[in-house]
Amino acid sequence: MDIYKKQVRELIPLYRHQLYDDVIPFWQKFSIDYEYGGFFTCLDREGVVFDRDKFIWLQCRQVWTFARIYNSVRKDEAWLNTALHGAEFLEKHGRDPEGNWFFSLDQSGRPLIHPYNIFSDCFAAMAFAQLYKATEETRYRKITVDTFYNILNRQKAPKGKYEKSFPGTRPLKNFALPMIMCNLVLELEYILESDLVESTIDHGISEVMDVFYQPDILNGVILENVLEDGTFSDSFDGRLINPGHILEAMWFVMDLAHRRKDSALIDKTVEISLNVLELGWDKTYGGIFYFMDVKGHPPQQLEWDQKLWWVHLEAMVAALKGYKLTGNVKMWEWFERLHRYTQERFPDSEFGEWYGYLNRRGEVLLPLKGGKWKGCFHVPRGLFQILTVLESMDIPSQN
Amino acid sequence: MDIYKKQVRELIPLYRHQLYDDVIPFWQKFSIDYEYGGFFTCLDREGVVFDRDKFIWLQCRQVWTFARIYNSVRKDEAWLNTALHGAEFLEKHGRDPEGNWFFSLDQSGRPLIHPYNIFSDCFAAMAFAQLYKATEETRYRKITVDTFYNILNRQKAPKGKYEKSFPGTRPLKNFALPMIMCNLVLELEYILESDLVESTIDHGISEVMDVFYQPDILNGVILENVLEDGTFSDSFDGRLINPGHILEAMWFVMDLAHRRKDSALIDKTVEISLNVLELGWDKTYGGIFYFMDVKGHPPQQLEWDQKLWWVHLEAMVAALKGYKLTGNVKMWEWFERLHRYTQERFPDSEFGEWYGYLNRRGEVLLPLKGGKWKGCFHVPRGLFQILTVLESMDIPSQN
Repeated sequence: MDIYKKQVRELIPLYRHQLYDDVIPFWQKFSIDYEYGGFFTCLDREGVVFDRDKFIWLQCRQVWTFARIYNSVRKDEAWLNTALHGAEFLEKHGRDPEGNWFFSLDQSGRPLIHPYNIFSDCFAAMAFAQLYKATEETRYRKITVDTFYNILNRQKAPKGKYEKSFPGTRPLKNFALPMIMCNLVLELEYILESDLVESTIDHGISEVMDVFYQPDILNGVILENVLEDGTFSDSFDGRLINPGHILEAMWFVMDLAHRRKDSALIDKTVEISLNVLELGWDKTYGGIFYFMDVKGHPPQQLEWDQKLWWVHLEAMVAALKGYKLTGNVKMWEWFERLHRYTQERFPDSEFGEWYGYLNRRGEVLLPLKGGKWKGCFHVPRGLFQILTVLESMDIPSQN
Repeated sequence: MDIYKKQVRELIPLYRHQLYDDVIPFWQKFSIDYEYGGFFTCLDREGVVFDRDKFIWLQCRQVWTFARIYNSVRKDEAWLNTALHGAEFLEKHGRDPEGNWFFSLDQSGRPLIHPYNIFSDCFAAMAFAQLYKATEETRYRKITVDTFYNILNRQKAPKGKYEKSFPGTRPLKNFALPMIMCNLVLELEYILESDLVESTIDHGISEVMDVFYQPDILNGVILENVLEDGTFSDSFDGRLINPGHILEAMWFVMDLAHRRKDSALIDKTVEISLNVLELGWDKTYGGIFYFMDVKGHPPQQLEWDQKLWWVHLEAMVAALKGYKLTGNVKMWEWFERLHRYTQERFPDSEFGEWYGYLNRRGEVLLPLKGGKWKGCFHVPRGLFQILTVLESMDIPSQN
């Protein structure tokens, strides 16, 4: 590893600066709604609010981010207060009478979109688990546990009555929920009973690696959707891969495998990551495509060739973790390539934070810093993950 | 008009060739499923089938197209047989027991997606109305009438149980259904009672021109969504405009206004069209944007800057009809500009038919000729509309 030490030592200040001096302050400065509570997430290039709706995914994710750095970095009261500010709004307005989390609210907290989306619940559980860790407030523990059991109850039919698929014709199951469960269970580890933690981990790993991972397709990819029996569906949904999603899942599984000291599983995640990085990389303009069809057919997603912030952050985290866990130099080379591509295009040196959406050529497609889907989450989480791994690799300077 | 006569006479053979020698034969050759019935619509650049699902919108639209040219151009039995081939599949598999049209079926006709989308019903009514006109088969008349009344019954809550909006918080109504009703009613004119035709026309025009048309926004635009009381909603949905949609609606209203000899209404549609063409035109790369935000904020549609085939065809039809009805030279100039942009980029001179999806720069984004949303409809309908208007302008050669 010695040959990379110098580079690691040079990268640490950059990522530290971006996280603590740029991104976190950007959200503290521009996102807080002092009038109604909660956060604005639709912020233009300069941080000016352009839409006031409150999307539960992003409200929860920002609570999580501030609670997480409070718990893991230092006990900065301003960080905790930001998390509490969001949690208060969520507690008051976020759920329907059955405890399901709405998809969105208006500025004042009135429900706009029904709870059709189970990921709202996943991000709520993450947020309140971190906040419970920060405060030891039992109310937050109860919200976490209630929400988690609600997710378990709903996971077989997550869309409920909003499911548009006709039963039986093409029974697909989707990768996103099993994948997020792999991460969620570690977030909730200290709240849930250890049997439930272990069985959820077993199930999550098995879903990702035995069901959605298809070793025979394109040298091994993870599909977004498979038939209930785990086989390939030759349909738009069945042929779809999302390289960013796969790479995010790979570092979730690396975390689980590391916890279990399962080096065979770590090696497998590195092998899959390398294959997906190669497959998803745009050989003409650089960057990783958003969506691809495993048969090379036109995907139905018109945004398929765009370069998204979260995809590149998740890819960097996977590459760097994979390198640290295995010493595989190819993973370091990918990390460097992704680092160069990403740092040249996504951060906005003039007004702070990162652009989210670039076109295929890497030019800014939408100048927003936050919107309906981009909030205070992937950038700070990615920077934090990268920084944590870099710091752990830079042993001499730590001691 | 004399100065344009020569140009008109030169354009007619081009549009005639594209419609009858290229586009219609392309679908006759590549789209017919001889095994299970119905049509393949997912065709790659060369016409090879890449997905076998049957989308009701596109099945119905292809039936309509072939029945329409059979009724309006000449009694070509192959055209009628193509329409009947699609209708047989639709009659057998297209509806649920309540008579609602599914959104999609698999190749063999088993339902894939529930009838959540009322536009399936609109296109079914159009298809069977044209087929009734072609065959005078009372079965087709009954399907048309049943479907039309079903649309009227569902139009207040078109998504039924699949509606995700929480009632009351932000009661938006959407432009697409009133707009399509303006066209549908003329398609069904000879089947429905004249009172119902006239009242539906009155309602359609009033919805488009008095409710969704907002004279004070950007010199007059038609919004995709307004609040139930007809006012502007400052939200992602409320700020959205779709220039192609507006221009398509404008030629629907021109047809209604022409039928009623309402020249003030015609003038209004031309005024709106000119404003929207100016607003929607990409000053950097040419072509018309897919989506825009009336306040200039980032739209939530990541595909906002793409150049779509149907947008440019609908714009050409609106410009040309508006010119013919008013003699406004600006409309002719827009037709010419759109004609040049479109003809240079969308038609595929090597393998036939038109590309559907270009990126902002006008480069091919997806090489498909048909997919989940592009079938045998906008290209032939647009070419037919343009050709009909051009021929009617070329009076000397007609007599």
